[in-house]
Amino acid sequence: MKEQAYYAVIMAGGGGTRLWPLSRQTRPKQMLRLFDERTLFQIAVERVEELFTSERILVVTVAEQAKELQRQCPQLPVENYLIEPMPRGTASVVGLAAVAIQARDPQAVMAVLTSDHYIRDEALFRQILAAAYEVAQEGYLVTLGITPTYPATGYGYVQRGKFLGNYEGFPVYRVVRFKEKPDEAAAQDMLASGDHDWNSGMFIWRVDRILDEFRQHMPALYSGLQYIAAAEGKDEEARRIQSVWKDLRSETIDYGIMEYARQVAVIPAAGLGWNDVGSWDSLFDVIPADKDGNILMGANHMGLDTNRTLVFSGDDDKLIVTIGVNDLIIVDTGDALLICDRKQSQKVRNLVNQLKSSSDQSRYI
Amino acid sequence: MKEQAYYAVIMAGGGGTRLWPLSRQTRPKQMLRLFDERTLFQIAVERVEELFTSERILVVTVAEQAKELQRQCPQLPVENYLIEPMPRGTASVVGLAAVAIQARDPQAVMAVLTSDHYIRDEALFRQILAAAYEVAQEGYLVTLGITPTYPATGYGYVQRGKFLGNYEGFPVYRVVRFKEKPDEAAAQDMLASGDHDWNSGMFIWRVDRILDEFRQHMPALYSGLQYIAAAEGKDEEARRIQSVWKDLRSETIDYGIMEYARQVAVIPAAGLGWNDVGSWDSLFDVIPADKDGNILMGANHMGLDTNRTLVFSGDDDKLIVTIGVNDLIIVDTGDALLICDRKQSQKVRNLVNQLKSSSDQSRYI
Repeated sequence: MKEQAYYAVIMAGGGGTRLWPLSRQTRPKQMLRLFDERTLFQIAVERVEELFTSERILVVTVAEQAKELQRQCPQLPVENYLIEPMPRGTASVVGLAAVAIQARDPQAVMAVLTSDHYIRDEALFRQILAAAYEVAQEGYLVTLGITPTYPATGYGYVQRGKFLGNYEGFPVYRVVRFKEKPDEAAAQDMLASGDHDWNSGMFIWRVDRILDEFRQHMPALYSGLQYIAAAEGKDEEARRIQSVWKDLRSETIDYGIMEYARQVAVIPAAGLGWNDVGSWDSLFDVIPADKDGNILMGANHMGLDTNRTLVFSGDDDKLIVTIGVNDLIIVDTGDALLICDRKQSQKVRNLVNQLKSSSDQSRYI
Repeated sequence: MKEQAYYAVIMAGGGGTRLWPLSRQTRPKQMLRLFDERTLFQIAVERVEELFTSERILVVTVAEQAKELQRQCPQLPVENYLIEPMPRGTASVVGLAAVAIQARDPQAVMAVLTSDHYIRDEALFRQILAAAYEVAQEGYLVTLGITPTYPATGYGYVQRGKFLGNYEGFPVYRVVRFKEKPDEAAAQDMLASGDHDWNSGMFIWRVDRILDEFRQHMPALYSGLQYIAAAEGKDEEARRIQSVWKDLRSETIDYGIMEYARQVAVIPAAGLGWNDVGSWDSLFDVIPADKDGNILMGANHMGLDTNRTLVFSGDDDKLIVTIGVNDLIIVDTGDALLICDRKQSQKVRNLVNQLKSSSDQSRYI
């Protein structure tokens, strides 16, 4: 089989607010520096650079984030930043990238990757992507499955079926079905079953294969993409994206395509140390705590009887004192302060929605 | 009996840090605005102004606070602000005021009052002070006793003895003894006894009587005071205070005088609504909470599942969000943030001592 070109597509247009007040509309999660001096976006690009040349790393983002992302990763060609006029879900992100890659190489394989997740073992991640490339060349739509560690209700699940073989040492399975975010009982069942993985939201496939699925399952988007593709590289292209996107219904690739697609495979990505950094509490799974179980991020902190608490400060000249505090999230960004019980850090999302609907407080989102 | 002049002496030189980070060395408790737009010092002056003319309200403070206090209460004559070069405990405060008043009126009665306590019923307070004046005229050293509501270990106690009579409707008792801050068991016993009051630190006596006690029990301070009194009103006076104070040992009026004094009486000041505002938690006894038990002070606050929590902010343009938070003290002053379990708010004091001994952090006290 002829070796096809392999592209990485990094989705970096999200506006997640679950790490509010650090993440904001104008400073989404992928732009945060949580683990070192690099933003999550920079980490996402750098961790695949051993596998992909800069020319083959594409970024899909929205207009208001494009300039900042280009500034953060100037090593990527400016034409590799694909810009959505407004976010319309991951289905359109994938579609836009697919037609752009198809114009360069009709048989190319593309890896759809997230920009705001944590991956501890980056070498293993690249090995899995290399294996997935082999599977995708055969025509499979490949998803990376994450071994579940608890009955999560915040992720989708993928059920493993028939064993398809080992690819570069990784076992690969046919997918029986995609399952949307379950309720608690269903999550318990799937965890107990032993044959379900979390849907990581990362996919590897040939552009012709995924576009064929778009043609069947999202024909409106597909014809829009064809209309855009016909102007590929011309001045006209941006205007066409604008007009197509304007009328597009928001849809995820999972609900729009994966639940209906044929020939879907999963590579269980065990040992990856993946974390979606979907809440402040999730940082405790990722960042080493001190002997009292505390995580200090940029904070000049003094604690008496303080345990299992995260303290983030945007101002290391401010003294933060905690006394008799356990299992708390404390985030001080100067214009906003969050103090949240760790067990309830998922509710930050609800809070941000409350802020959105308040004319007084919407300036804080 | 001839009616003697009645003076109020407001002690306003304290440097308490138990309300850190709001109270600081440069902004002690009496300068805080906790209850309305007035500082505690302004409230302390205004609540006795119906009973004392401005000419008969004296303030004893330390050099670094004098200008600010004069600015806050310009209605008091500037010569009524008595200035200690450095704090030396309440014994020297009382002594300095006593000789200043004696120079004006040798038989005067003086009421020694605090500037940083809360008193709910100010009219009752004035009635009690008026009654105490009657008792003091007879030569008694009068203390205001606070009916104890729990076995406090942070206050001194006064044991009531023989009933001396009703003065303007208030029963007055001879004091059997003053008792220093007790341990838990002794506090329990005194609460159970029913004949102990908390020592409020407020006293009413004739200046000749208290100076006689100084002569007997604190002769070194007494002779220093005589040396100062001899220069009363002259340029020399401040220099003499400076030289006496320099060598003075710090002492409280309770330990230095009251434990040994003869002819001591107590007026149980029941129903006064007195509170020493000695910790953040004490504000819950004084400030009405909202339906969730929360107290908001200057804060733009949004809470989900937040109960019995105090939120103070020095910046009403900062959004403070609490989620799943109970029984917490949250104080944000811009350069410092305190988050403290209510039950442990006494430890703020320990914390400030830690800050003092740290070269890095002493700028925050």
